[in-house]
Amino acid sequence: MSVLVVGSMAYDSVETPYARVENALGGSATFFSAAASFFTPVHLVAVVGEDFNTAEIDFLVQRGVSLDGLTVEKGKTFRWKGRYLANMIDRETLDTQLNVFENFNPNLPESYRDDQVVFLANIHPELQHHVAQQVRNARFVAMDTMNFWISGTPESLRRTLTVADALMINDSEVRDLSGDSNLLTGAQKIQAMGPRTLIIKKGEHGALLIHESSLFSCPAFPVTEVFDPTGAGDTFAGGFMGYLAMKNDFSAETMRTAMVFATALASFSVEGFSVDRLRTIEKADINNRVKRLYEMTRFQIEILP
Amino acid sequence: MSVLVVGSMAYDSVETPYARVENALGGSATFFSAAASFFTPVHLVAVVGEDFNTAEIDFLVQRGVSLDGLTVEKGKTFRWKGRYLANMIDRETLDTQLNVFENFNPNLPESYRDDQVVFLANIHPELQHHVAQQVRNARFVAMDTMNFWISGTPESLRRTLTVADALMINDSEVRDLSGDSNLLTGAQKIQAMGPRTLIIKKGEHGALLIHESSLFSCPAFPVTEVFDPTGAGDTFAGGFMGYLAMKNDFSAETMRTAMVFATALASFSVEGFSVDRLRTIEKADINNRVKRLYEMTRFQIEILP
Repeated sequence: MSVLVVGSMAYDSVETPYARVENALGGSATFFSAAASFFTPVHLVAVVGEDFNTAEIDFLVQRGVSLDGLTVEKGKTFRWKGRYLANMIDRETLDTQLNVFENFNPNLPESYRDDQVVFLANIHPELQHHVAQQVRNARFVAMDTMNFWISGTPESLRRTLTVADALMINDSEVRDLSGDSNLLTGAQKIQAMGPRTLIIKKGEHGALLIHESSLFSCPAFPVTEVFDPTGAGDTFAGGFMGYLAMKNDFSAETMRTAMVFATALASFSVEGFSVDRLRTIEKADINNRVKRLYEMTRFQIEILP
Repeated sequence: MSVLVVGSMAYDSVETPYARVENALGGSATFFSAAASFFTPVHLVAVVGEDFNTAEIDFLVQRGVSLDGLTVEKGKTFRWKGRYLANMIDRETLDTQLNVFENFNPNLPESYRDDQVVFLANIHPELQHHVAQQVRNARFVAMDTMNFWISGTPESLRRTLTVADALMINDSEVRDLSGDSNLLTGAQKIQAMGPRTLIIKKGEHGALLIHESSLFSCPAFPVTEVFDPTGAGDTFAGGFMGYLAMKNDFSAETMRTAMVFATALASFSVEGFSVDRLRTIEKADINNRVKRLYEMTRFQIEILP
């Protein structure tokens, strides 16, 4: 079964202590699609400007990403410029030019409206809600968000949360959205706002799946060289949602395996700029990291007499 | 098989945003022994002053902790006073009175010199080395350290590392000791200094076992209320070493299970001041958390066709 994603396509300029790149293909919908397309067809909804070079996303089309929902508007494509600090986690935004993204109004092509698996990437919660309303038979709707919406548009965000099955969020955002400094009780408060599933991303410390009252902890895949963390979260989301859509199953057990595939994909993403690594890896590479994550977490349980 | 521990016994005064305690029983050897004694007899080596109330450690004796190596010296017991910040991780030391601990010179009783499993808690690396020299038939020697020794006495620390089988260390200390910002390649550099096993403690993010080239990641047990983190690391060490000594086995597989027991014990430690929770829990409580950690980490592996 296909997965629908609504998000951004962008040109990113990124500096790290080790390297830099100008106007590289980026955006949440791009990273998501590059990851999800390993598993299942992807229906992409995004907007770009007249300066966008569609040849750069031919590889996505070849992997089964539909561009029926991609709109080309007069003006320039969304551009973001940022710099990572020495720890390769904290970053500062040097410049943001929303351009055509400023008036993004996602309307789904008719052919997408029966999609059952939906990812609402990090855009204004009003737009997320608008998309969710256009889908007729959704079985599993997941959404991302960020501190900007948590503090800036809390009512809109709350309303969108009521229509989401799952929320992807990082650990500091859990604390901000719930007002609770404890991750676990904070997560329970967010579940009470709507989504019964929370996927809490902790960067180099892995990710936590909270599905109803069950917990699953997945470590990060240990990468010896983090080259550029941009897009890791959206790549994770693409791996997670793509796997669920491929299995057409949304049980806790399937979500656990989806977390592991998501982790493997995110680990590749950070090994290069833009979607460079996601272009070149093959399924065997993903399988290898899934196997290593399995080995990294196995233990013999024993009970004290 | 018994486990030998050399470390501190202290009176701690601790403030958190929620509560405070004065002159509570603390010290690395105390927390270690309270945890390890669930698994195996403990041989304790420490020094206290004349003001020390030995009735407070009767519960340790009842659990099989030998005090043959406990010296009472003229003067006062080591005292530490600290305050935890709102995140319950960062802390500031308000006062340190080394007292009799300043001249601690650990000499093992003859009855301890055949011990095969040894934990050198966080004391001067010269003293750790001195203890290691007194043990005739050591099979598994693990040590702790801290930034104070990494920057202050690097030559001593390097010499002690050459006689250690395992090093327990936190993630920022890995970076400081190795001079490498990547945890994994930093760990490899430390292994090259001597210990073939590294246990990297990451607090709320769990712990990582690196044994030769194999990795095991254990999440922290999710505690809904962290009351006082003091002693969590030493409790973890006590659980880990106590389990290994009980099994009399130092294979990678046994170390993995030991990590999980260690995690369970540390999670109890932070739920109360001092060793309060470690006094009152029973083996069934530990087993329950081990089972929950097992459930938290299970997943069905699948391979993409």
